[in-house]
Amino acid sequence: MALRAAVAGASGYAGGEILRLLSGHPETEIGALTGNTSAGQRLEASQPQLLPLADRVVEETTAAALAGHDVVFLALPHGHSAAVAEQLGDETLVIDCGADFRLADAADWERFYGSPHAGTWPYGLPELPGAREKLRGARRIAVPGCYPTAVSLALFPAYAAGIAEPEAVIVAASGTSGAGRSLKPHLLGSEVMGAMSPYGVGGGHRHTPEMIQNLSAVAGERVTVSFTPTLAPMSRGILATCSARATPGLTAARLREVYAEALAGEPFVRLLPEGRWPTTAAVAGSNAALLQVALDESAGRLIVISAIDNLTKGTAGGAVQSMNVALGLPEELGLSTIGVAP
Amino acid sequence: MALRAAVAGASGYAGGEILRLLSGHPETEIGALTGNTSAGQRLEASQPQLLPLADRVVEETTAAALAGHDVVFLALPHGHSAAVAEQLGDETLVIDCGADFRLADAADWERFYGSPHAGTWPYGLPELPGAREKLRGARRIAVPGCYPTAVSLALFPAYAAGIAEPEAVIVAASGTSGAGRSLKPHLLGSEVMGAMSPYGVGGGHRHTPEMIQNLSAVAGERVTVSFTPTLAPMSRGILATCSARATPGLTAARLREVYAEALAGEPFVRLLPEGRWPTTAAVAGSNAALLQVALDESAGRLIVISAIDNLTKGTAGGAVQSMNVALGLPEELGLSTIGVAP
Amino acid sequence: MALRAAVAGASGYAGGEILRLLSGHPETEIGALTGNTSAGQRLEASQPQLLPLADRVVEETTAAALAGHDVVFLALPHGHSAAVAEQLGDETLVIDCGADFRLADAADWERFYGSPHAGTWPYGLPELPGAREKLRGARRIAVPGCYPTAVSLALFPAYAAGIAEPEAVIVAASGTSGAGRSLKPHLLGSEVMGAMSPYGVGGGHRHTPEMIQNLSAVAGERVTVSFTPTLAPMSRGILATCSARATPGLTAARLREVYAEALAGEPFVRLLPEGRWPTTAAVAGSNAALLQVALDESAGRLIVISAIDNLTKGTAGGAVQSMNVALGLPEELGLSTIGVAP
Amino acid sequence: MALRAAVAGASGYAGGEILRLLSGHPETEIGALTGNTSAGQRLEASQPQLLPLADRVVEETTAAALAGHDVVFLALPHGHSAAVAEQLGDETLVIDCGADFRLADAADWERFYGSPHAGTWPYGLPELPGAREKLRGARRIAVPGCYPTAVSLALFPAYAAGIAEPEAVIVAASGTSGAGRSLKPHLLGSEVMGAMSPYGVGGGHRHTPEMIQNLSAVAGERVTVSFTPTLAPMSRGILATCSARATPGLTAARLREVYAEALAGEPFVRLLPEGRWPTTAAVAGSNAALLQVALDESAGRLIVISAIDNLTKGTAGGAVQSMNVALGLPEELGLSTIGVAP
Repeated sequence: MALRAAVAGASGYAGGEILRLLSGHPETEIGALTGNTSAGQRLEASQPQLLPLADRVVEETTAAALAGHDVVFLALPHGHSAAVAEQLGDETLVIDCGADFRLADAADWERFYGSPHAGTWPYGLPELPGAREKLRGARRIAVPGCYPTAVSLALFPAYAAGIAEPEAVIVAASGTSGAGRSLKPHLLGSEVMGAMSPYGVGGGHRHTPEMIQNLSAVAGERVTVSFTPTLAPMSRGILATCSARATPGLTAARLREVYAEALAGEPFVRLLPEGRWPTTAAVAGSNAALLQVALDESAGRLIVISAIDNLTKGTAGGAVQSMNVALGLPEELGLSTIGVAP
Repeated sequence: MALRAAVAGASGYAGGEILRLLSGHPETEIGALTGNTSAGQRLEASQPQLLPLADRVVEETTAAALAGHDVVFLALPHGHSAAVAEQLGDETLVIDCGADFRLADAADWERFYGSPHAGTWPYGLPELPGAREKLRGARRIAVPGCYPTAVSLALFPAYAAGIAEPEAVIVAASGTSGAGRSLKPHLLGSEVMGAMSPYGVGGGHRHTPEMIQNLSAVAGERVTVSFTPTLAPMSRGILATCSARATPGLTAARLREVYAEALAGEPFVRLLPEGRWPTTAAVAGSNAALLQVALDESAGRLIVISAIDNLTKGTAGGAVQSMNVALGLPEELGLSTIGVAP
Repeated sequence: MALRAAVAGASGYAGGEILRLLSGHPETEIGALTGNTSAGQRLEASQPQLLPLADRVVEETTAAALAGHDVVFLALPHGHSAAVAEQLGDETLVIDCGADFRLADAADWERFYGSPHAGTWPYGLPELPGAREKLRGARRIAVPGCYPTAVSLALFPAYAAGIAEPEAVIVAASGTSGAGRSLKPHLLGSEVMGAMSPYGVGGGHRHTPEMIQNLSAVAGERVTVSFTPTLAPMSRGILATCSARATPGLTAARLREVYAEALAGEPFVRLLPEGRWPTTAAVAGSNAALLQVALDESAGRLIVISAIDNLTKGTAGGAVQSMNVALGLPEELGLSTIGVAP
Repeated sequence: MALRAAVAGASGYAGGEILRLLSGHPETEIGALTGNTSAGQRLEASQPQLLPLADRVVEETTAAALAGHDVVFLALPHGHSAAVAEQLGDETLVIDCGADFRLADAADWERFYGSPHAGTWPYGLPELPGAREKLRGARRIAVPGCYPTAVSLALFPAYAAGIAEPEAVIVAASGTSGAGRSLKPHLLGSEVMGAMSPYGVGGGHRHTPEMIQNLSAVAGERVTVSFTPTLAPMSRGILATCSARATPGLTAARLREVYAEALAGEPFVRLLPEGRWPTTAAVAGSNAALLQVALDESAGRLIVISAIDNLTKGTAGGAVQSMNVALGLPEELGLSTIGVAP
C-alpha cells in the first residue's frame, strides 16, 4: 500500500522538486499540498511543469491539512517547522527541508538565526559516517542545507582519513533557485543574468556552522571553515571548490585512494575518472554528486570540487533518499543519477 | 523480455536524450551505442549526465554494430540514414531522427536538401489525424523535425476545423541544442548568451516544406507558411508563435472549443486553461506540448502558441512515443509530462 | 555652458541608462536625481555600474527638486508624468519616457490604459517621416515605447512605399529589463533563465495602438497589427520579426531598394548587407537599430527583422537623440553605434 | 596629431574590445586591422557591434601591414607575438595582450607553456607598486592576463602591508569570452548555459605563475598561490574570491584602512563602501575593478573579492591604460568606469 505524502510549501522551488520526485516514486502517493500565499490556487499557477498535478489545489498550511499522512515534507521558511511538527504525531515521518533542526549547538543556532533553538533531528545526509544508522527508523529528519551537502560530501573523506589540515577554504557558486522564490531585487532576472555576485562573505552565511559541525565531527577536532557563497547566472546547481592544506607527505595517489575508498558503494556520489571535472550541467535534475580531487604540490593543498543540483541532491532528492533510509526502502528508490543535459 | 535498442549518434544531443529516456523505459534495454568521431571513447566523455552509462564505450557506426537489435534509433546528420537503414532487416524497427524520410515530395526534398530523395517513412507525430494508424506495426519511422512538431501541433486543429485561412505566419524561438553539437562560431556560448538571432529567414529553413506538408494535408488545400526561426539564449526549448487570419465569424469561444475537442484525450498535448501561457521552462525534459490560443479580433487573426522541449517531444520523446505506438506498447510508457523547473 | 539635466526615476533601469548616456554627453551636466522608494539612498545602491555618480544621493521626486533644469527626463511609471510635467515651465525641455503622451487617440489610450488621456506630445522617433520637423524646438517630447521603436523602424519604409498590405504580423522577443525593476514573480532570475514566455497575446499589449498609430500614419490608411511580445532569457535587447503580405509584383531587389532609400543618411538605422542578420548582441549598449529584409516568394510575404537595445535606442538613447534634435544639437552627440559584445 | 594604432588579431574578442575602446579614444586613429583566418573579410563579419568600422577589411597579419603605426596592439595566440614584435622598430609602441612577455622567470615560462621563453617586457598593470615608473616611456608592454589582473589588484595591498600570510587561495569565475573565440566543444552555448565548470585545477593554469610573480614581488617573499578557475554561464566578467590567513592581531578596521590607503587616488580601482559587494554585472564594458574586503575572525582569514570585465580592465582596457601611461597621456583618456547594466 502506497505511503501518503504531504508537502507543506508546495508552491516553492523546494516543494516543486519534492513533488517532481514523489511523482516518480513507486511507493508514495501524493496527499495534501499546502502553502501560504498560494493557498486556494491550482498548483499549475506555481508549478506549471508538473502537468499531472495541475488541477490539484493548494490548501492552507495547517496541522489539520497535514494530518493523516505517513510522510510530511516541510519546505517552509526558517523558523516555521517546529510549530507544525509539534502537531504531527510520532507515527508520522516528518522531513524538514528547513534549517530549524540541523544544528546541534544551540549557541550556534542563536548566533546565526537570532531565534531560540528548536532542537536537533537526525541529519539527512546518509553518506556521512554513522548517518545511515541514525536515519534508520527515524521519524524526524533534518535535511541538510544545499551548500553543506555539497561541501560535506566533498571534504568528509579527507577529514575522516586525516589527510587535510583543519582549516577548510570553500568558495561555492549556486544557481538562483537556492535563494527560493522570494521577491528580492537582487534576484530579478535582469540583475542575475551576466552576474557573479558574492554574499554572506567573511563567515556570515548561515550554512557555515553546519559545515563546521559536519567536518569537525568527522575529523574529531575543530575544523575552521572559510566559506564564500556566490550567486551564478543559472537556475540550478552548486559547484563547490573546497581546499585545505594537505598533511605532510600526502601524495596524489593516496589522495585518490582515500576518496575511492570512502565513496565505494555510494549510489549517489561519484569520484570522476582522472582528467574529468564536475560541472553543474551534468547533474541538473539528478540526485548525483560528482567529485574530483587534485593535489597542488606547489601550494601544498588538496582541492576537492563537487557538483550537485541544489534542488535535487541538495534538497528534495536528499530528503527522499533519507526517507527511503528511514522507512527501510531501497535507498535509490524513486531517485536517479541521470541529469537533463544539455 | 526487454527490447534491445541501439542508438547511432550516441554522443550527440539527440542521442543523449534518447539514452536518457530509454534508461527510464521499462521495456527497453540499451544495446549498442555508436558514433563517429566519438568512437572508442567512454560515453562519459560526451554524456556526463548519464552516470549509469558512463563506462559504456562508443563503437563505430556500422551495420554490424547495429545488427541484432529490436529497435535502432538513428540520430545522424542528414543524408546518412538511408545507407545505414538499408542494412538493417525488416524485423528491426528503425526510427530516424534525421530529415531523410520525412518529406513525401521528392522535389521539395531536393530543393531544400540538394541531394536525391531517399524515400518517405511513416511520420512519427501520432497526434496528427491518421498518424497513429500508420505508425501501428510500422518498422520504419521518420521522426518529425523539432520546429514542425511544435508548429504542427499548434495549427493542425485550426486547419482540420477550417477556421484558419491557408496562410500561416510562424515565428519560433529555439534553444541552441536544436543546432546540435557542431562546432560553429555562432554557436559559441559567448555569441549565444544575450543574443536573439534569426536565421533561415524568408522561407529558406529546411523545416518549412515539412510544415507545409503537414498543414496542407490536414487542411485539404495548400497552406502557405512564412516561417522565421530564431536562436534564443537557452539550451533547450521551442516557443512557436503561430497565427493565421481567422475565417469570418470565428469567435473566441469557438476557437477554444475547436482546440479542446481536437486535443481531447491526447496524453502529451495540453491546452492550458484560459489566462495561462506556455513557456519553454515548463516543459524542460518533459514530453509535453503546451498550447494556448487567442483570437485577436482587431487584427482578425487567431494566434496559437506552443511550447515543447526540442530534444524531448521535439526529437527523442517523439521518437520513443512513436516506438511505443509502432510496437503496440502503451503510448505513454517511459515518457513523462513532468518537467525540470526552475 | 552645459545644459543641466535632471532625471526623475533615476534608480530604475531606464533612469540608469539615461544617466549612463548623459555622463558621456559633452553638452549636459547631471543635476537632480530623483526617485520614489530609493529617495535618500546613494545612487550606488541602485546603479552600481555608474561609478562616477556613486555618491550622488537620490532625492524625492517633487517639482521643487526638478525645478531649475534645462532638461528633465521622466522615467516614471505610466500615469505619473502629467502631474510632474505641469509644474515644469515651458522653458524646460521635458522628455517623457513613459507612455502618457504617446497616443493621439484618447479612446485608444483609455481602452488600453484605463485612465483619462493626458494629451499628446511630439513623438520622439526622429526617423519617422515628418518627425524631426516636429521635434525641432519642441519643449515636450514623448519617447516611444521600446517595441514600437523596433517595429516602426522596421516597417515604416515598406508602408511609406506602399509595398506591404496593411496587415502587419509581429512577433518580438525582449530582454527582461524591458519589464523594469518591479518585483514580480515571473521576472525572478530562476523563472527567466531557460524560458521563452509570451505575454499580452491577442492584441492586449499596450504598445499595439502605438504601432498602429505610427504605421497607419505612414501608410495613409488603417494598418492592423497582430503583435505578440515574448520575454527572452537575456537582460537587454529586442528582436522584432515583422511581416506583411507583399503587394503584387514586389521583387527582392525593389524591397531592398525601398529600404536603402528610406534609411539613407540615417545615423542610427542600418540596413545590413545581404546575408547578414540583426542580433540583439550586436547592439547591446548601442543606439543603433539593425535591419534586414527578405521576400518570401513562396508565402508572398516580406519579412523585416530589426534589433535594438531596448534601454538605449528603445528608451534612453532615443530620448537623448530627440533631445539633441529639439535643442538644435548635432543629432549624434553623446550617442554611439558601437555595442559591447560579446 | 592622432596616434595611428594597428590591431593584430582584430577579429577576436580581445581585438574587438581594443577597437571599441580605441574608437572612443580622443588621441588615436585606427590604422591596420589584421587577422589570420579572417583576412580578407569585412570587419562586420566578426565584429558586428562595431558599426563605424563595419566596412574595414581585415588584412593578413604581416610586418608590412603593421608597419608605420605609432602603436601596435597584439592580440594573438600565445607564442606568436615575438616574431611579429621583432620586425617592428623601437619607435613603435608594441602592446602585447598575449602571455609571451609577462613572466620574468624563463623556467616558469617553459614549464607552463612548453616553449622557449621570449623575454620579459614592462608589465602593464599600472596599479602595482613601481609599475607606472617602468611603463612611462616604455616601447614594449606586456598586458597582464585577465585572472592575474583581478587577483593582483585584490591582493597586492595585503601583501604590501604584510597583513596576509604568504599562502593565497583563489577561486575565480570567468565569463566565456575569456577563453576566446576558439571552436572547442566545451565552449558551445548549449554546454555553457546552466554550467559552472572548473578547469586547470590543482596549480595547472598558466596564469598561476604570473600571480605568484606579482604577489611575491610585492610581499618580498615567495607567496604560494592555490588557484582554481571556473567557467561561468555569462559572456563577460571575472569574480575573484581571494583569501589568506591574516597575520596575528589584524583587525577589520586595519584591513579596511590598508586597502583604502593602497588604492587612494587610483582612477580605476574602487574599494566599495562597507556592506556592498562587487559583481561582474557592475563592470560590464567598464575599466573599473571593484573590491571589497572582509575579515573572517572565526576562520582567521582575510577575504578580498574583486570584479572586473575580463575584456576591458582584464585585457583591452588595461592595454589602453598602459598605453596612456607609456605615452605620457592622461591615464584615464578614452577609458570609463561606467558599465552597461543591467
